[in-house]
Amino acid sequence: MSDNVNPNINKIIQNLKRQNYSVEEYVEGILSGNRNMLSQSITLLESILPEDNQKAEQIIKECLPYSGKSKRIGITGVPGVGKSTFIDYFGLKLVEQGKKLAILAIDPSSGISGGSILGDKTRMETLTGMSEVFIRPSPSQGTLGGVAAKTRETIILCEAAGFDTILVETVGVGQSEYAVASMVDLFMFLIVAGTGDELQGIKRGIMEMCDIVVFTKDDGDNLQRTAIAKRQMQSALQLLPPKNSGWMPTVTSVSSVEYTGFEKLNQIIDKYFDFISKNNFLISNRNQQSVDWFYEQIVNLLKNSFYANEKVKELIPKLTSQIQNNEISPIAGARQIVDLFFRH
Amino acid sequence: MSDNVNPNINKIIQNLKRQNYSVEEYVEGILSGNRNMLSQSITLLESILPEDNQKAEQIIKECLPYSGKSKRIGITGVPGVGKSTFIDYFGLKLVEQGKKLAILAIDPSSGISGGSILGDKTRMETLTGMSEVFIRPSPSQGTLGGVAAKTRETIILCEAAGFDTILVETVGVGQSEYAVASMVDLFMFLIVAGTGDELQGIKRGIMEMCDIVVFTKDDGDNLQRTAIAKRQMQSALQLLPPKNSGWMPTVTSVSSVEYTGFEKLNQIIDKYFDFISKNNFLISNRNQQSVDWFYEQIVNLLKNSFYANEKVKELIPKLTSQIQNNEISPIAGARQIVDLFFRH
Repeated sequence: MSDNVNPNINKIIQNLKRQNYSVEEYVEGILSGNRNMLSQSITLLESILPEDNQKAEQIIKECLPYSGKSKRIGITGVPGVGKSTFIDYFGLKLVEQGKKLAILAIDPSSGISGGSILGDKTRMETLTGMSEVFIRPSPSQGTLGGVAAKTRETIILCEAAGFDTILVETVGVGQSEYAVASMVDLFMFLIVAGTGDELQGIKRGIMEMCDIVVFTKDDGDNLQRTAIAKRQMQSALQLLPPKNSGWMPTVTSVSSVEYTGFEKLNQIIDKYFDFISKNNFLISNRNQQSVDWFYEQIVNLLKNSFYANEKVKELIPKLTSQIQNNEISPIAGARQIVDLFFRH
Repeated sequence: MSDNVNPNINKIIQNLKRQNYSVEEYVEGILSGNRNMLSQSITLLESILPEDNQKAEQIIKECLPYSGKSKRIGITGVPGVGKSTFIDYFGLKLVEQGKKLAILAIDPSSGISGGSILGDKTRMETLTGMSEVFIRPSPSQGTLGGVAAKTRETIILCEAAGFDTILVETVGVGQSEYAVASMVDLFMFLIVAGTGDELQGIKRGIMEMCDIVVFTKDDGDNLQRTAIAKRQMQSALQLLPPKNSGWMPTVTSVSSVEYTGFEKLNQIIDKYFDFISKNNFLISNRNQQSVDWFYEQIVNLLKNSFYANEKVKELIPKLTSQIQNNEISPIAGARQIVDLFFRH
C-alpha cells in the first residue's frame, strides 16, 4: 500500500460496495450458503441506521420460509467453567457428524463495560476457520433487549444459510439466561463440581430453565467430586415442578482434557430432540416464543417512539426532579407526560 | 328488610352516597384519620372506572405532602410459614408501643385463581377491629403490575391518614417479592428451619433483597434445628455482595406460640431504620423507587393506550396467527401494528 493512500480506503470501498447489494442479492447469497453475504446481512441487522435495519427486515422476511430447520441450543455457565474449551470440542464432535454449526453469543457485559467477555473467536481454536462453522459474537448494544432481539433474527438468517445447529452462548450475568432460554429449543447449563456453581444456578432460577446440566472438568482430582455432585443434582432436579416440555432434566459430565463424555452428551441431546419432536413441544414452544417476541417488540417500539419524542425529552428531567422532591406522584407524572406525547 | 326491597338497594344507596363526596372532603377525611374515608378513597383507586381513578389521583396529589413519614416494611414467606400468626403478634407489639399500623397485602395468586390466599382479615384475630390497625387486602386485578401500582398509592393514603408503620405482605409466588421490595424501606423474609424454605429463598433471589431473615416457629422440637439454621443462614448471607444500603442482613427468630423473639426483632428493625436514616439511604432509596415507578407507569400507560386502540384490537389476532404460521417475523409484525397505531 502506498504511503499516499488513506489506510481506511479499503474499508471505505468495501463499505460502499456492501451497501450496493440489493435485498434479492443478499437473500440469494444467504440461501446459497455464502458466509460473506450472511455476515453482511447480520451487520445490516445490527446497524444503528434505520435504512440498514429496514433492508435487514426485508432480507429476514425473504429468508423466513427457509428458516426453522435447525436445532437451537442455549449454553450458559459462570465464567471459569471452561465454556470456550467445551464449545470447541463439542462443536468439533458435531462437525465430525456432518453438522453445520453457527455459534452466536449474547454478552450482557458489553453494554456496561464496553468490552466483550464472550465471542472472542480466538478462544475457539479448533473451530475458528472451519468451513462448517460460523462464529458471530454480539456487538455491544447498550441494552440486553437489543442484543437479544438481534440474536433472534440472526438465528433465522443462519438457518436460511443452511446451518443446522445453532449454539447461543451466554454468561451468567443478569437476565441474559432468560433471553437465551426464550429463543432456543434446548437449554444447557455448564457447571464445575464443588465450586458453588450449583448454588449460583439455583439462585438465578436457571435450574427451572435447563434441560441438561453438564458438569465440566470431570477429570483428575475432580472425578469423585463430580460423581457425588451429579447424584445430588439429579435429586435436586427431581424436586422441581415438571417442565412444560414433559422432559426430565438430565445430568451428565464431560472432560475437555480427556475428551470424555461428549458422545453421551450428544446422545442425550438427540434423545431430547426426539422427545420434544414427538410430543410437539418443539413446534408449540417455538410458536409461543415468536408470539412472546412479538409482544416484547411492540413494547420496545412504543418505548422507542416515546423516548425519541422531543417534547418528552424536554419534560422528563423536569418531572423526574419534581418526583424526587415529592412535588408530584410518579403516577400523575407519568400520566402528564404520556398525555403530552399523544397530543404531539 | 321487606321482601319487596331489592336486597342490593342498601349497597346501591351506599354507592351513590360514596360518589357524592368531593376530593376536598376525601382529603379532609383522610387527614383527620377517618378510616371510612380512607377506605373509600382506596376503593376509588382500585375502581375500574377512569373517572374514579382520576378522582383518586387528585386525592393522592393532595395527600402527597403529608405522606412519607412511616416505616414501610415488606414481609414475605412461603405459605405455611405462619405469616398471619406472626403479623398478628408482631402487630400487637407495635400497637403496644403506640404505633398506628396499616397492613396491606399483595396477592399474586388472585389474578390467576380468582380467589385470594392473603388478606383474609379473619386470620389476624387480635388485630382485626383495633382502632390503631387498618387492614386492607388487595383485590384481584388480573396483573401483578396493577396490584402493585395500587398498593404503592395506598401506602401514600395510609401515611396521610396518620399510619406510621405500613406492613406490606406477600407470598412467595412469581414476581410479587420484587414488587414489594420496590415499595418498602425494609424487607423481611420469614422461614421455618429445616423445611427447605432457605433453598426457596435462595432460588427466588430473595436473599439479595432481604434485610432481616426471621425464623418462625422457634419453639419445641424446632429449637435446636432453628439454632443451627440461623448460623448457617448468617454465614450464607455474608457471601452475598454488599447491599446498596450498606446494611448487613441480620438473622433472628421468633415463636408465635411462646411469644418470644419479638422484642429482639423490633430492636433490629429500629437499628436498621437508624442506620439507613443516618446514611441517607432511606431518602435516596425512596427517591429511586419513585423514579423507577414513574418509568414503569409510563410503559403501563403506553401499553394501555395501545391495546385499547380499536385498529390494534382488530389486527392483533390476525398478526398473531401469521406469526405462528411463520408467515411474518415477530419483528415485522410488531413494526406493522405499531405504525398503524401511530397513524390512528
